[in-house]
This record gives sequence, C-alpha cells and structure tokens, in this order.
Amino acid sequence: MKGLTVAAQPSIDLNADLGESFGSWQMGQDTAMLSLVSSANIACGFHAGDPVTLRRTTQAAAEASVTVGAHPAYRDLAGFGRRFVDAAAEELTADVLYQLCALDGIAAAAGTGVRYLKPHGALYHACHSHPGHARAVVEALTAFAEATGRALPLLLAPGALAHRLAAERGLPTPQEIFADRAYQPDGTLVSRRAPGAVVTDIPAVAETVQRYAEEGTIIAADGTSLQIQAQSICLHGDTPGAVAIAEAVRGALSGAGVVVESFV
Amino acid sequence: MKGLTVAAQPSIDLNADLGESFGSWQMGQDTAMLSLVSSANIACGFHAGDPVTLRRTTQAAAEASVTVGAHPAYRDLAGFGRRFVDAAAEELTADVLYQLCALDGIAAAAGTGVRYLKPHGALYHACHSHPGHARAVVEALTAFAEATGRALPLLLAPGALAHRLAAERGLPTPQEIFADRAYQPDGTLVSRRAPGAVVTDIPAVAETVQRYAEEGTIIAADGTSLQIQAQSICLHGDTPGAVAIAEAVRGALSGAGVVVESFV
Amino acid sequence: MKGLTVAAQPSIDLNADLGESFGSWQMGQDTAMLSLVSSANIACGFHAGDPVTLRRTTQAAAEASVTVGAHPAYRDLAGFGRRFVDAAAEELTADVLYQLCALDGIAAAAGTGVRYLKPHGALYHACHSHPGHARAVVEALTAFAEATGRALPLLLAPGALAHRLAAERGLPTPQEIFADRAYQPDGTLVSRRAPGAVVTDIPAVAETVQRYAEEGTIIAADGTSLQIQAQSICLHGDTPGAVAIAEAVRGALSGAGVVVESFV
Amino acid sequence: MKGLTVAAQPSIDLNADLGESFGSWQMGQDTAMLSLVSSANIACGFHAGDPVTLRRTTQAAAEASVTVGAHPAYRDLAGFGRRFVDAAAEELTADVLYQLCALDGIAAAAGTGVRYLKPHGALYHACHSHPGHARAVVEALTAFAEATGRALPLLLAPGALAHRLAAERGLPTPQEIFADRAYQPDGTLVSRRAPGAVVTDIPAVAETVQRYAEEGTIIAADGTSLQIQAQSICLHGDTPGAVAIAEAVRGALSGAGVVVESFV
Repeated sequence: MKGLTVAAQPSIDLNADLGESFGSWQMGQDTAMLSLVSSANIACGFHAGDPVTLRRTTQAAAEASVTVGAHPAYRDLAGFGRRFVDAAAEELTADVLYQLCALDGIAAAAGTGVRYLKPHGALYHACHSHPGHARAVVEALTAFAEATGRALPLLLAPGALAHRLAAERGLPTPQEIFADRAYQPDGTLVSRRAPGAVVTDIPAVAETVQRYAEEGTIIAADGTSLQIQAQSICLHGDTPGAVAIAEAVRGALSGAGVVVESFV
Repeated sequence: MKGLTVAAQPSIDLNADLGESFGSWQMGQDTAMLSLVSSANIACGFHAGDPVTLRRTTQAAAEASVTVGAHPAYRDLAGFGRRFVDAAAEELTADVLYQLCALDGIAAAAGTGVRYLKPHGALYHACHSHPGHARAVVEALTAFAEATGRALPLLLAPGALAHRLAAERGLPTPQEIFADRAYQPDGTLVSRRAPGAVVTDIPAVAETVQRYAEEGTIIAADGTSLQIQAQSICLHGDTPGAVAIAEAVRGALSGAGVVVESFV
Repeated sequence: MKGLTVAAQPSIDLNADLGESFGSWQMGQDTAMLSLVSSANIACGFHAGDPVTLRRTTQAAAEASVTVGAHPAYRDLAGFGRRFVDAAAEELTADVLYQLCALDGIAAAAGTGVRYLKPHGALYHACHSHPGHARAVVEALTAFAEATGRALPLLLAPGALAHRLAAERGLPTPQEIFADRAYQPDGTLVSRRAPGAVVTDIPAVAETVQRYAEEGTIIAADGTSLQIQAQSICLHGDTPGAVAIAEAVRGALSGAGVVVESFV
Repeated sequence: MKGLTVAAQPSIDLNADLGESFGSWQMGQDTAMLSLVSSANIACGFHAGDPVTLRRTTQAAAEASVTVGAHPAYRDLAGFGRRFVDAAAEELTADVLYQLCALDGIAAAAGTGVRYLKPHGALYHACHSHPGHARAVVEALTAFAEATGRALPLLLAPGALAHRLAAERGLPTPQEIFADRAYQPDGTLVSRRAPGAVVTDIPAVAETVQRYAEEGTIIAADGTSLQIQAQSICLHGDTPGAVAIAEAVRGALSGAGVVVESFV
C-alpha cells in the first residue's frame, strides 16, 4: 500500500461515494467524478444503490480504471444510512457480508471486483468508536478473507477503533483525510453542525491539499499543525460544487508533483 | 447431471424452499427438512431471507451436505414474491444477479457455494411463460457464468421457456416434478385455486412418487398417464404436514431402490 | 364539480404530482409547481414520499391554497410505482386505504385534508383497464366514504373502468387531459415508447391548451378532432421544462379567459 | 381514566401487542388474545402489520369490543422495531403521525378508531429515557390532538420521560405494569438478558397479579415491596405460553374481584 509521508511521496488516492441513486431517484455526478477519482466507494443497496445502479456504476468504474470499493451501510433507505441503528453484532456482520458479496459479484460481472471496503454514513462513524459494530464489520471482512483468500483493506480515518481490530486480523488499514472539512486540534473532524465545519471555498481546499502534499500536515481550526498519515483523500460527490472541488484538489496535487492513484 | 428415466435410474434429487424467515418472523421447518432433502433453494433477501438467516441456513446446509441453490425473487417482501411485478428486463437481470451473488458469497463463507438457481414464486412462473422475464433470468446466469466460469443449472418444470433460452447459452436445464400437486393432461399443474390442486394425503403422495420412481410416469387428474423426465422432486417446507410428506417421499423412493442425491 | 365544456366554461383545474422525494433523494420542483397548479397529487409513501416530505408538502399546499389529493401507488419504492404488481384485490384495497388515511391525517395536521384521489403510475393505468384492481381502488374509496362521510372524487382519464364502478357507488368521477401528450384517434394516449408521445415544444403545448379552452377539443396525432370532457389538466412536475410548460399552460388559459381553480 | 389503587379498585385494563404479522409471515395468537384483553396495541406497518393485517385486526378488535391502540415503531421491518434508530426529531414525529393516522383511518373503516398510543419496542424504551425521541412522540400526539380534537392517552411504564412532556400538553398518561417480568428495587424492569427477567411460571404470574390487585404492590427481585400506580397490565401475545398466562391473569383478577376493562 502506498501513502503520503512528510518527506516526499509520489502518489495518493482520491476516493468518493458513488452509485447512490435508487430507482427513479438520482444522486451525485458519477460520470464526472469517475474521471477525477482513483477509488469509488460504491453503495451496496442498503442505504442506496439499486442493482441496476450497481451494475452501471461498476461498469463505468471499470471503464475508467477506477478501483471499486464496497460502501456498505445500515439497512436504512429512508435515512440514507446516516442514522445509527442499534443492530446486533451478528446481524451487522451478516448485513455487511451480504452487501459486500452482492457488490463483489456484480463488479466481477463488470470485469472488476471489490478491492477495499469503506463503511458508509453512521456505520463509518461507528467503526471509529462503537466497539461492537467496529468488531462486526471486521468480522465480515475476516469471513470474506477466509472464504476468498482476499484480505480487503478497510478505509477509515486515522485512529479508528476498527483499524486496530482489522490489523489484528491481518487486514490492511489505509487512512484517509478530508480535503473540505475543518479539523479539531486532536485530529478529529469538527462536527457538521458547527459553523465552518465544511469548507466550500475552493482556493482554501486547494491550499489544504497542497500543504498536505508537501508537508504531510493539516492545520486545525485553531491553528494547530497536525501530522497525519493518510493514503487517500476523501471527496464529496453529491454537493453542488463537488466537481469543481475535485478538480481543484487534482490541480493542487499535480502542482505538488503528486500522482493520483489507488492505494490498493 | 443425473436424472430418473423409465427404465431404471439409481438416483433423484429432492428440493425444498428454505431460509424463508425474515427478522423476527419465522417460516418453515428448516432443520427437519435439511435432514430429508438433497438440495435447498435458499431465499436471497428480496422475498424473504435476511442476511443472518442466509448465513445460518447456508451453514446448516453445508453441515448436512445439502446442495445450496439460489432462490431469487421479485423485490416484494410484502407479497413474499408471489406477485408478478412488471419489472424492466434490465432491472430484473440486475436484481437476480445481485441476489445470486449475495447468497453465493455468504455460502462461500459457510464453506460451500451456490450450485444451481431456482426462481421463486411469481418469478418461477414467469420463467415458464413470460419471454422478457425468462430471458432476463437467463441473462443473469449468463453474466454470472462469464464472470466466474460457473455455468449454474436452472431448475424449472418441464417445458419452461427459460429452459430453451438457457440451453442456447450452454446452461444445464434440470427439470422437477411436484409430488403433492395434481397435474393436468398437458403436463402442467392444476391451478392452486382449483379443488384438489394440492394433495395432502400422505399415502397418495407416496404412491405418486413410487410410480414415478418405477415407471417414470405421473397420472394426471383425469387419469392420463404422463411421461415426464425429471431430475428432482419438489417438496414443500412450510406446510403443516411438510416433514411427514417428505419422509413418505423418501420412504417411497427407498422402497423403489432410488437413492436421493443432488442433481448437481 | 366544475368542468370545461365546448360552449363556454369559466374554470378548469391544473394538477401535478408532488411530494415525490424520499429521504435524502429529491424529486420535482414542488415550490414552483405549487404556485402554478390548483391541485396537488401528493405521494403517500408506497412509491415515494416519506412522512417528513408529506408533512412539508401538505403544509406548503395549504399555504398556497392548493387542493390536496391522495396519490397512492403499488408498494414499490424501487420501481417508483411504475411497475404493475399483481396484488390480490383485498391487499390492494387495504394498501390504498392505508395510504389515503395516512396522508389525510397528515394533511389534517397541516390544516387541510385529502379532497380527491388520483392513483399513481401503474395503478393509474390499472384503474383504466384492470377490472380487479379498478374495483379494489373503488372499494378503498367506498370504505373511506362510509367511515368518514366524505365521498372523494376519483381523478382519471376519460373512459376509465374505475370511473364506471365509482359512479355506481356515488363517487364523483372528474376527468383529466394531458397537455403535453400526443393522443390517438380513439382518445387514448400514444404510448410513451412511441416517437412524439411527449410534447416538449412549449408553443405547441400552449396551442393545445388554448384550443381545448376555446373549443373543448384536442387534435389527435393523425389530425382527428377529439371532443373530450375534462375538469382538469395534468402537468408534469419532474421534467426539466416542467415549470416553463406549466407557466405556458396558465398563460394560454388566461388568454382564453379561463380561470384556474380546483375541480373540488 | 380508571386505575387500580391500594385501597380498593374495581377495574384494570389488560393490553397486548397484536397485528404483528406481515404478508405471508404470521405472528402471535391474535384471535385467542382478543378474547382475553381489553386493549390491543396494533402494529402500524413500520415494524410489522401490513395493511390487510391492520384491517383484519381492527375488525376483529371491534367485534370483540376491544379498545384499539396505535403501536407505532421506528421504520425497521428487519429488526421488528426492536433496534434503536437515531432518527431526527422531525422525522420521528412525522413517522409516528403517519402510522397513527393510517391505523386510525383503517380502524374507522372497521367501525372503531384509535383510542390511545403505546410506542413499540426500542421506541417504547426511548420514550422513557431519550429526551429528543420522547418529545418527538409527544409532538405527534399533540399535532393529532390539534387536528382532530382527540387527546389520545400515551401508555407507558411509570416514570417515563415522555409522560412528563405529555402531561404538559394535557395528554392523559396511563401507566402499565408487566405481570411476567422481574422488577428491580427502583421500580424498573430487570434486563431481559439477566437470568429470571421473564417469569414463565404461571402460578407465580398469577400470584403477582393477585397481590397487585389486592395491595397495589409488586415484589421486586430482591424482595422490596414496590407501590406502583397502574391502569393497565401488559401481556405478551407472541410467546408459547401467552394464552395460558393471559388466562391465569384474568383468573387472578377475577378472584380478587377486579373487572377487566379498558382504561380509556
């Protein structure tokens, strides 16, 4: 696995959530984003992503040579997977495995396959702090690895509880940063509900990425300089300025001599 | 593929629908049935079968050395997949592929895998008579075969439209008969709404199976003797007398010197 | 109930489908459309319309003095209610009654109530030609009328089978025309799959509406002049040019001296 | 509202959860329970209870002169509403109102109506301890009361947070006890996961009810005598011995000279 370090690093991954349409409802600018990212977190049907959408998205990712990641969620269409659901660990492991296998098979039919897993929404957050659910997700990856011989990387933010458990099982644990989110001095994100949590100013995002590319640091909201080790930068694909921000991020990386390529 | 012919045939398959619980709702007598059948048509989540149920059922099937088949359906929990849904062909192919791949991955985690596919409920009937949907199911199997190299048999009743299409694609086309259903002179089933459509008299079912085992024939409701080539006998797992009927069928086969084993 | 006749008629209704978002997925331009229509067909949760969306939409309709209609559908989120579902009559009646009552209560909490019912998508079509389902919908309206004393009008196209059944039960049967659809000589719509089925040319739509307002006639695709009695014109709210077309229709009606007001 | 006090009280309510089948899946022994309870908490479709089941159950309740209560839940069919879902307050209020209105309309068509509300599963627990969700449920009842003039009682265990909020809004706040659950010295229930949490010994349940009927007290697991004011006793309808326990409870009440009747 590649990664960006302070000294000098040739490449980093860009990831975004794709395939989040459902039936007649459209979401995101998948076509544009596929030309900008190196990894696509593709919805698996429980928070978004009907099977036709999954087929089309995996086919488009394969054509664009973008790495396919599974983006499983709690079973919650109405809440788009953004609501914590207090599932039993056994249920959650089975739900994640089901979603992962469904997408993997559909990706295989598109000539590719699932190469990593990044949990979606509330499940992503649970993987950082909820012991039972963090373990349940790792159990699903472990079961998949035992059945297929493929130890899929688990993509999360630095410090995730599930990363410790995944490492114990021999699963790769790539880390990601957010180019358009404000950080707290402890390295966690400023809550979305706080003012300034999401950065929409494109030059500011570009500057953040450039600094990270050159120095491996991120400046927290209070000015603290944070040293963060990450193999991927997360972009948002469903906001109005998503494409423009993604282009600015690529521009900043290019200016800093960093190649965009998948961490896998 | 093995099959029962008039002259003398050593073996036949017994199949039943399993894994049809959902969340807190239980259905069927899966444990008992797994000791009696050679093939289990396992629900895939669209008409029944939450992921925990799928894991447990595939594990139990693996332990009982019962062959796992995928039992996909229209997306219709409220109707248990028994209602025709006029899905577009592209949707249906994707829905079937999604269900098949999800179950196959879960079965792999249980140490086994999907070895055949039998559509459920209204989709089963559509495979016999609805050109667009029959083709859509075969497309899903074809996509699966191309991606995995595994040409799964498609289990249906004799004369199914989808069997013709499957044969053109090089997919095996095993046929099944129903031990407890009345037949019309043309070899199709008497409608469930007609009196006498379902046979609950155990000796009568046993006699039907014994005659089929010895002569390869079934007597239609009007007395016509039907010559039917089948590799499997379908049993029902969710009726009150299901287990007793299954035991009677096994007894009749045993008495006729026919071994019960999967057609795969 | 008011209606437009050949001779001279002061008013006609404009209706459109609203409230079709679901969770994080947005659909339609509800705010703009509410300033243009006199009746809103509001989704009830089975094909679209989560409860928050229903509350917001009924509140907005009440504020805009737009009449609220129930827009029930088959239970089919993934297909947006556009796929025929072969439900049993008893199921369908209960499904429609459930949706109608839920929306009616939510509309009451918004200071208004359901004043008519227009089935959505495939259920709309079934009401024109499927005897069992047409009857099932009328049964739901009849049960509602008996329980509440409110005989809700059933809005459909001319010649609908369900209109005959509704009339027998003493339910009002308002008819609608489509301003942007091509008609066949027999008064039915040209299939959406045929070229020219949907008219997107704004002047052409305006001309159609002006002619209907002045003469009560619609010119079919082959030039036949159709005499159609209608109390409402259906507009589409979810197409790119929806608002512009709606404005053109209002302009044409205004130019012809026809007032836009609900048929209720 | 009636209630049982220490001194002497003529009547108490018996309530149980009913209408919890869904499509082809059956749950509970509704027919038997309807002859034993005075109040039925009827599922509203989000955790169980398809519309046909709601119609049948409300009709049967009306015929048995059993009071109908709404039993809304989080939107969670797969978890049967037993899993906490971190819904936004606005969502939850709308979800509860939607369920309440749907059932109320269906009950009206059965000649009755919803007379009280008891939240189901995880939502029941949230009403006791989750400020935001407790308030959201009360907001739904308040909106219903404002729209219909009907201030529905909210049935919960003693000490519920939502009861304080409901009382502020002028809503009745009946309390219930559990005949077959062990209590802690502070009046709360012993966790279901602890040994002895659920009492299945029929004489023991009968003794508990008799003591409560005569003295208004319940003996906690450690022997503490708890003075509890309750208007209803909750019975379980979906356990193997449910009917026998319900009969024993009725017998004990009858022996103590207490009449079973709804608290409404």
